[in-house]
Amino acid sequence: MMFDFETLSAADRYKLLVATVVPRPIAWVVTQDKAGVVNAAPYSFFNAFADNPAVVGIGCGPRPDGPSPKDTLANIEATGQFTVCLVPHRLVHEMVATAVEFGPEVDELAEAGLTRLPSAKIAPPRIGESPVAMECETFQLVRAGHHTIVLGKVLAMHVADEAVMDPAKRYIDTPKLDLVGRMHGRGWYVRTTDRIEVPRLTVAEWQARKAAKAG
Amino acid sequence: MMFDFETLSAADRYKLLVATVVPRPIAWVVTQDKAGVVNAAPYSFFNAFADNPAVVGIGCGPRPDGPSPKDTLANIEATGQFTVCLVPHRLVHEMVATAVEFGPEVDELAEAGLTRLPSAKIAPPRIGESPVAMECETFQLVRAGHHTIVLGKVLAMHVADEAVMDPAKRYIDTPKLDLVGRMHGRGWYVRTTDRIEVPRLTVAEWQARKAAKAG
Repeated sequence: MMFDFETLSAADRYKLLVATVVPRPIAWVVTQDKAGVVNAAPYSFFNAFADNPAVVGIGCGPRPDGPSPKDTLANIEATGQFTVCLVPHRLVHEMVATAVEFGPEVDELAEAGLTRLPSAKIAPPRIGESPVAMECETFQLVRAGHHTIVLGKVLAMHVADEAVMDPAKRYIDTPKLDLVGRMHGRGWYVRTTDRIEVPRLTVAEWQARKAAKAG
Repeated sequence: MMFDFETLSAADRYKLLVATVVPRPIAWVVTQDKAGVVNAAPYSFFNAFADNPAVVGIGCGPRPDGPSPKDTLANIEATGQFTVCLVPHRLVHEMVATAVEFGPEVDELAEAGLTRLPSAKIAPPRIGESPVAMECETFQLVRAGHHTIVLGKVLAMHVADEAVMDPAKRYIDTPKLDLVGRMHGRGWYVRTTDRIEVPRLTVAEWQARKAAKAG
């Protein structure tokens, strides 16, 4: 059946998007205001988009998976800097703790019992327990109604030593990161455990396979 | 360990991004050129970003998961229209077939044995076998080096009848869609089967939990 997005409400469009565009990677975004107060919150309207420069994008709106994005977006607009940490299975409860609608005076990282580590190139810290953290500066802000698409240029990436298989070849043990993705509803996530391998094919391989099938 | 993105090559940055930002949802993008020749290819630099307007984003570059994005991007630039279909587990081999580096004269949908269904609001068709298809028009193109971030406004969404639990409430049976996400390497994907529920908490629920723990 067809849902006409030109006549639906924004709330209904949101419902349909978050129930279908899955699994979504999760950005655990750490920012700080000009006074140095740190904010952290998870966002699943998130992905990588480019490599030269390396660009990641985050949709910040009034109804993300996390709490009101007021603090995150205001801090990014004020400072132009943010850290994107990724979320392993063992930290899902801490992640959800940082999504509680605390007042702006609450330090979500302290509430969740998480460790701040200093970043190398920007002021906002990274979450010590997270196996991957990207230090970002604003590349472009794209307004889309009450959402703002924050495009960030990645200046540096930290990866937990035990997940780096070959530093010179930039070879990461992705399964070892044990990351989770966002699914539907108020609280469904997916683990990255049920994996399948479907290698890409060259044209010659495809033709051979087709001929064998027709054979 | 830290990877300094300001000194790494674009290829190394790409390697690190695709090995860490997981699981990525997959856009199976259908476009057509002004003569009506249809093109289809999968992209995993993809997500939803906004609901009012509903905006999805796709990173099209020289080294996406799919083939050279020349055709997809050229068609979007020429026509301003594209269909984003989503990929269930039962169609992964067909998806990989559309990622083979065929010449521009090859109709990937026909090669993969997939059905074209007409769209309601745009010219490019949708893939009949896909349980979700979004009809999109260009919202904005953001250049980022040799990548272009295609932001599309969603005009309509088609969902397979058997996955629509309550049309009036826009309630979708997400697990029934059985979608896959992109992982690392040349061919690793993840199923959305190994799910966990971690409900969000109100401030009161969080305080109660904290007090109980402190016991």
